[in-house]
Amino acid sequence: MNKVQLYDTTLRDGTQREGVSLSVADKLKIAEKLDEIGVSYIEGGWPGSNPKDIEFFRRAADLEFKNARLCAFSSTSKPGISAAEDSSLQAVVETGTRTVTIFGKSWDFHVHDALKTTLDENLAMIKETVLYLKSLGREVIFDAEHFFDGYKGNPEYALLTIETASEGGADAVVLCDTNGGLMPWELSPILEVVSDRVKSPLGIHAHDDAGMATANSLLAVREGITQVHGTINGYGERCGNANLCTIAPNLQLKMGLQVITPDQLQGLTRLSRFVAEVVNIAPPDQQPYVGFNAFAHKGGIHIDAVNKKPATYEHASPELVGNQRRILVSELGGQSSISIKTNQNNYHLEKGKPETAAVLQRIKEMEHYGYQFEGAEGSFELLVLKMMKAYQPLFHLEGFRMIIEKRENGHLYSEATIKVRVGEMQVHTAAEGNGPVNALDNALRKALEEIYPALKQMKLSDFKVRVIDGVDGTGAQVRVLIETCDDTMTWGTVGVSPNIIEASWIALVDSLEYGLLCRKLPELDEAKKILDQLKQGNV
Amino acid sequence: MNKVQLYDTTLRDGTQREGVSLSVADKLKIAEKLDEIGVSYIEGGWPGSNPKDIEFFRRAADLEFKNARLCAFSSTSKPGISAAEDSSLQAVVETGTRTVTIFGKSWDFHVHDALKTTLDENLAMIKETVLYLKSLGREVIFDAEHFFDGYKGNPEYALLTIETASEGGADAVVLCDTNGGLMPWELSPILEVVSDRVKSPLGIHAHDDAGMATANSLLAVREGITQVHGTINGYGERCGNANLCTIAPNLQLKMGLQVITPDQLQGLTRLSRFVAEVVNIAPPDQQPYVGFNAFAHKGGIHIDAVNKKPATYEHASPELVGNQRRILVSELGGQSSISIKTNQNNYHLEKGKPETAAVLQRIKEMEHYGYQFEGAEGSFELLVLKMMKAYQPLFHLEGFRMIIEKRENGHLYSEATIKVRVGEMQVHTAAEGNGPVNALDNALRKALEEIYPALKQMKLSDFKVRVIDGVDGTGAQVRVLIETCDDTMTWGTVGVSPNIIEASWIALVDSLEYGLLCRKLPELDEAKKILDQLKQGNV
Repeated sequence: MNKVQLYDTTLRDGTQREGVSLSVADKLKIAEKLDEIGVSYIEGGWPGSNPKDIEFFRRAADLEFKNARLCAFSSTSKPGISAAEDSSLQAVVETGTRTVTIFGKSWDFHVHDALKTTLDENLAMIKETVLYLKSLGREVIFDAEHFFDGYKGNPEYALLTIETASEGGADAVVLCDTNGGLMPWELSPILEVVSDRVKSPLGIHAHDDAGMATANSLLAVREGITQVHGTINGYGERCGNANLCTIAPNLQLKMGLQVITPDQLQGLTRLSRFVAEVVNIAPPDQQPYVGFNAFAHKGGIHIDAVNKKPATYEHASPELVGNQRRILVSELGGQSSISIKTNQNNYHLEKGKPETAAVLQRIKEMEHYGYQFEGAEGSFELLVLKMMKAYQPLFHLEGFRMIIEKRENGHLYSEATIKVRVGEMQVHTAAEGNGPVNALDNALRKALEEIYPALKQMKLSDFKVRVIDGVDGTGAQVRVLIETCDDTMTWGTVGVSPNIIEASWIALVDSLEYGLLCRKLPELDEAKKILDQLKQGNV
Repeated sequence: MNKVQLYDTTLRDGTQREGVSLSVADKLKIAEKLDEIGVSYIEGGWPGSNPKDIEFFRRAADLEFKNARLCAFSSTSKPGISAAEDSSLQAVVETGTRTVTIFGKSWDFHVHDALKTTLDENLAMIKETVLYLKSLGREVIFDAEHFFDGYKGNPEYALLTIETASEGGADAVVLCDTNGGLMPWELSPILEVVSDRVKSPLGIHAHDDAGMATANSLLAVREGITQVHGTINGYGERCGNANLCTIAPNLQLKMGLQVITPDQLQGLTRLSRFVAEVVNIAPPDQQPYVGFNAFAHKGGIHIDAVNKKPATYEHASPELVGNQRRILVSELGGQSSISIKTNQNNYHLEKGKPETAAVLQRIKEMEHYGYQFEGAEGSFELLVLKMMKAYQPLFHLEGFRMIIEKRENGHLYSEATIKVRVGEMQVHTAAEGNGPVNALDNALRKALEEIYPALKQMKLSDFKVRVIDGVDGTGAQVRVLIETCDDTMTWGTVGVSPNIIEASWIALVDSLEYGLLCRKLPELDEAKKILDQLKQGNV
């Protein structure tokens, strides 16, 4: 079997996903990461359809790719216009990419109804476009749009379109399930006929409208197809494209094909999350292999077993794709999960101890109220410390007040004042911010940074708000998750309240306290010294 | 082929999903909806594992199901304990359900390493448990846990476990891919051997860890399996269970099997969203068939084509599953999307008109800033009205001020004061709330309700906050989506600002304005009259 190539179209087909809008800088960043992970092709965009993509190719020309070839995408020439005169094709040629991907119509219905031309004219357009691009020395990949639907309606015509592309010199012919309705058992008989008729290397471009994109892509590879198109996290129009984050590990770990190196495979989870961050759409937590929950265990029996032998409830090792096992703290997990979790964290709350039962009981109560510790390690550890009476608050809040004012000129002004006591010293500060939480954060830091200078290294890196019970409108319970980072680590904390400001406050205090606790006692000892000096008026 | 039965385990295996925690009332509500949709079995829970499930079965006994049988779930008896003395089995028997589902170990590795008993003892436990339940007259479904992994490691032993269950009288034997790593091409050779050896009706219980749960379930049906286990929205541990919302329409529409009635199939999208609401975890928007994006079109070419002939870019009709086509307003959609969207809304902004280009340009700018109109029809229509100078503000804001104060006793207090002008009349109000947005909403309504009494019928039904750019912590851009409803309709509005209060304010004002506009002029005329009377001191 020839080496199977991954062809990424996140930057073109992926951006058809609702809510995705990438800047040129975003696209460049993603392209570099795609190259690192080892895909063979990166489809960068459709320069004929928008100026942003032209700009992208202009700037991408300066990038040096180690593994991937960059492709520009377009359609065949339009009816009645020669390839050399088609503005969209000219835009592709001008990008200067060595590889060009051209889609053409393979479904007679589309030729008549969308393209509004004759079947022969469509074949001529395909032929002329491929010949033209080949005459310019380009590698040409031909995407046969709606190939499978076309084949089901008019097999002979669908075959003619790809034969034409192949005879014109296309370096690869890609069979597209554009509408995503193909069933896996329909694939093999069609591919048999295709391989008889077309000698160019074949590819598959699947969509997930029937939940079959991954299965169809892998089955096609088993039938000899050597190029698999897809996107990171399956981004794409409607139900999305075939998900390369599922396909790559399946090819590698289930089919034994080395499509990328094991090191690159280990970068897959990071890549998935990086792209999600840039695209700003979190992929489903349940996503195979790289999802946040992909190796998360919650049932008590499962946790017990997986802790002894991971293969009992894991089909693959999370490390192979750079993901990790997660033991969820929840009422369903029972004491085992508390015990394993806290042993990871050195609190030794073994199963059967009364302290473990007490922690579990408290967690159940808080979950009932709306808390979730599954993404908030920091708050979970602080809770355990508090339950074990091993917790010393870093400061005492005497009160805060926030004023948010919108004046007639439209200007909005957020101010927070805060009064805290550290030891016997009272600190009263005020700060502005570009929103109430930001103002509160600024005022609290102002109050504490002198005593705990390490706070200066800590920075809120993410802030998520979830309304838990949506039925009462703004009167519902609000859960705020804060992610904080310093030079060495990242941690999550959580706060819940009917009031978003209070929920933010709880998560904020946890985030700073946990950050300081992780730097352990030296910092706290230092704080005591500073306090003493302050009290004595020495600073 | 025998009729294929859907077996739903949302209430048992589905609750293993991270973040899912259902009350007894939640489970009862979901069970009723599952019965309506026409599943054959509803696995209600594991009464031996927690008291909540015992309570569920006690209360479910009063429900009358039209289509489904309720099953209680448990494991086989434990090593060294007879079935009649096993407390978990007794809990199942006490539920009184006619159908009982029992899982047993089919993988020798698990028998040794998780169960810590001998292979023979495990077979004896299976046999005795099935015989015992059959002696009580129950229908017994045997879940062969890890059957496929077991078969791959020790085929003879895996087969023995299901043969034993079948010989004991099990009414169905369900082959479980518990770890979700099964590849579709592995299925058929195994099923061939199984059908030779076991004469009981067979089922499949697939997990999605390799993205194959749907494909494996359907392929198994093609091989003669008649019971398909899964959950609504694919909820489940790790990557989730087989998704019945994908499987049911595929069985029905792609394989021509009538598993539920066409009317029931039309209820599927509603069921998916109902369960999501109760579980409080939105399923992926890209979910096949029932997902919010499943029939959403964004690319300009696609929108043009699908508007003429839906089959050009849809593999099935959204109406068949109760979903709907959505034309997304975005920069990629081009003028076609504006034109189709506004024609739906009666503004007649046809493609090519300068007004259409201007609206598109404004949308691009606002999307760049962080807006998304895809879920905010109300704000989109107001924007069009404003661009077309057809908009008359209902009031003029002179300013608002919010004070949020946390005192040492821990009490948090939110107050909003607001000054608006309606016509020439100034209204100045103050209100409290359980959070800042609630206080603002209350104060604004207080100011306007006298003049626009229809506001009393409108109620915020959902409030979502999204931090758009997560890299600057609380300093990032905040997008607030508000959903409002009255007796007859529901509408979405959106606001974006670095300040959450301002973003909420924008969405709030749009929500009230749009609601009033939809009630059209009578209400506004009425408002003018009231205003005049107020001015004349007559009210």
